[in-house]
Amino acid sequence: MENTNLQDYSHKRFNILTGEWVLVSPHRAKRPWQGQNEEISSEKRPAYDETCYLCATNTRINGEINPDYKDVFVFTNDFAALQKDSPSFSVNDGLLKAQSETGICKVICFSPDHSKSLAQMEVEDIKKVVHAWQREFKDLGANENINYVQIFENKGAVMGCSNPHPHGQIWSQSTLPNEVDKKNHQQKEYFTKNNSSLLGDYLQQELAVNERIIFQNDDFVVLIPFWAIWPFEAMIAPKKAQKDILELSDVEAKNFAEAIAIITQLYDKLFHTSFPYSSGIHQAPTNGEENKHWHWHMSFYPPLLRSATIKKFMVGYEMFGSPQRDITAEVAAKKLRELL
Amino acid sequence: MENTNLQDYSHKRFNILTGEWVLVSPHRAKRPWQGQNEEISSEKRPAYDETCYLCATNTRINGEINPDYKDVFVFTNDFAALQKDSPSFSVNDGLLKAQSETGICKVICFSPDHSKSLAQMEVEDIKKVVHAWQREFKDLGANENINYVQIFENKGAVMGCSNPHPHGQIWSQSTLPNEVDKKNHQQKEYFTKNNSSLLGDYLQQELAVNERIIFQNDDFVVLIPFWAIWPFEAMIAPKKAQKDILELSDVEAKNFAEAIAIITQLYDKLFHTSFPYSSGIHQAPTNGEENKHWHWHMSFYPPLLRSATIKKFMVGYEMFGSPQRDITAEVAAKKLRELL
Ligand SMILES: O=P(O)(O)O[C@H]1O[C@H](CO)[C@@H](O)[C@H](O)[C@H]1O
Ligand SMILES: O=P(O)(O)O[C@H]1O[C@H](CO)[C@@H](O)[C@H](O)[C@H]1O
Repeated sequence: MENTNLQDYSHKRFNILTGEWVLVSPHRAKRPWQGQNEEISSEKRPAYDETCYLCATNTRINGEINPDYKDVFVFTNDFAALQKDSPSFSVNDGLLKAQSETGICKVICFSPDHSKSLAQMEVEDIKKVVHAWQREFKDLGANENINYVQIFENKGAVMGCSNPHPHGQIWSQSTLPNEVDKKNHQQKEYFTKNNSSLLGDYLQQELAVNERIIFQNDDFVVLIPFWAIWPFEAMIAPKKAQKDILELSDVEAKNFAEAIAIITQLYDKLFHTSFPYSSGIHQAPTNGEENKHWHWHMSFYPPLLRSATIKKFMVGYEMFGSPQRDITAEVAAKKLRELL
Repeated sequence: MENTNLQDYSHKRFNILTGEWVLVSPHRAKRPWQGQNEEISSEKRPAYDETCYLCATNTRINGEINPDYKDVFVFTNDFAALQKDSPSFSVNDGLLKAQSETGICKVICFSPDHSKSLAQMEVEDIKKVVHAWQREFKDLGANENINYVQIFENKGAVMGCSNPHPHGQIWSQSTLPNEVDKKNHQQKEYFTKNNSSLLGDYLQQELAVNERIIFQNDDFVVLIPFWAIWPFEAMIAPKKAQKDILELSDVEAKNFAEAIAIITQLYDKLFHTSFPYSSGIHQAPTNGEENKHWHWHMSFYPPLLRSATIKKFMVGYEMFGSPQRDITAEVAAKKLRELL
């Protein structure tokens, strides 16, 4: 497409998946930074840390002892935000509206090696994480009261991660959270109208334009979405429309693992640091419906902007108005691609 | 109402102004924190700092010299995210959708005193800030291409504020940002149906229940909204339905200033620190329409959770699912009220 206006002047871009906008200010990419710098921990971690509550054979706060696990280890969150057996109630009192929400929260250790991150793991080992996600998605989703399963990872202290041991979380619950609800709506509307996948059609367009693609293999595309919010936000999506990760063949699971390895390694290379991010997989609700309109995908929201210590703050205007970015999606994609 | 379930079990609450939900996990308020601690700067600042680009008589990066201002000083942002004269264009290329956005961004210094914050200013001086907001709202809104004016403040390094000199910002633009669009929609729907103000009716209910009210004077209520996201999020709203701050009488402007003084002082007392936050005023678009459904209000989104150094992280689940909080709005309101 090559619309140079998009590289030069303020504009907003539409997120087809959420129906919301992001404000882009490319001319501002050069403003000086006088604010807070993040601390970087260049501390080398040992493969085993006796004070870590996620390392194998260690005791957790609630007294349970972790098994001597060899690859992936999953357990129910000791401080779960959602509980399975809390009572059902609702408040409908004038303009006060609330309803109980039950669920199950789990923690998933990606590796027994305390020193590693996904970026440093072999594709074969990441594939084991993918398989664990599949098992959990299936098991949790099978619960009568669980209609949605959110898989995510917070990586790095700056992303609120309280333990550097490589791990992610899974929060599963009875109703659709806000973000999923929006994507459910947008995808359904498009599918009803066009009888094809919104994200699938978008990916085809991106592959043809080839401006925001970072990497692809037989089954997956890694790209910076046109409407990305975070400076180096990226998305991994299957080329074929699949509603959830249970549809992955064994080869596809491996190619998904490869895509994860590639993007996390590029991130680490970008600013020569263990790149912080939150990542998450959006997929179809586990509500027993067909959900043919869903096309699952994994997104990475990393806060770093210009170096290992300078992050983007989503504050004032972003909280009250719309998300805002300076560097464009195209420039971000180019920077990452050049590190391949 | 006294629904004890709301204090004991996971639930979600509905935000009547945005139409979105927040997940509340009251049982989790006691989990230990092992993650990142924020730095607190207890540094005492001088009343004048020769290196500060906001202090009176100093030279800014673009070479302009600040006047020797005595109360409030407003200027156009030297690194504006929106520009007045950028070209008009749009992209409508398959699933890529973008459009140019023009606007004017300003910086507003609240006081020449580099050492102060709103919490430390006299009500009379905060009233001058309110008057400056009114002038800017009126002037900017009068522009043909400006249909919305966002007034906000980022306070504290943790909120991305790059200069401790007391100041806020105003970004004005041609279209409605996401958050404003949601509130516009929800208020309009309610007004059309009930011929009365959504927020006005809500305030009446809150005043009757008196569980989340922190403070009130003749014209304003300060409260923790039922659906608050941030641990100590608060709202200041006029009791009378007014669409924007231009409707304030002189007495009301003073009572608004008093409400700002009260909440910012309570914040500082809570954790014995200069409390960081982003604040913003949501008000009617300046699009020439009547906007009778609008009831303006000012919100404070402070990140601190349990102490001056422990903040709430809106990360993984919050980014991919819904905002989540542990401490309830009722407990937060009680804690702040007790400091009055
Ligand atoms: O304009 P400032 O203070 O330099 O920048 C700050 O506020 C802006 C508006 O909320 C944000 O876009 C920036 O990320 C933040 O660092
Ligand atoms: O569950 P953790 O790792 O203790 O906590 C972290 O992730 C959660 C889910 O995104 C957030 O609610 C917390 O604010 C964050 O600190």
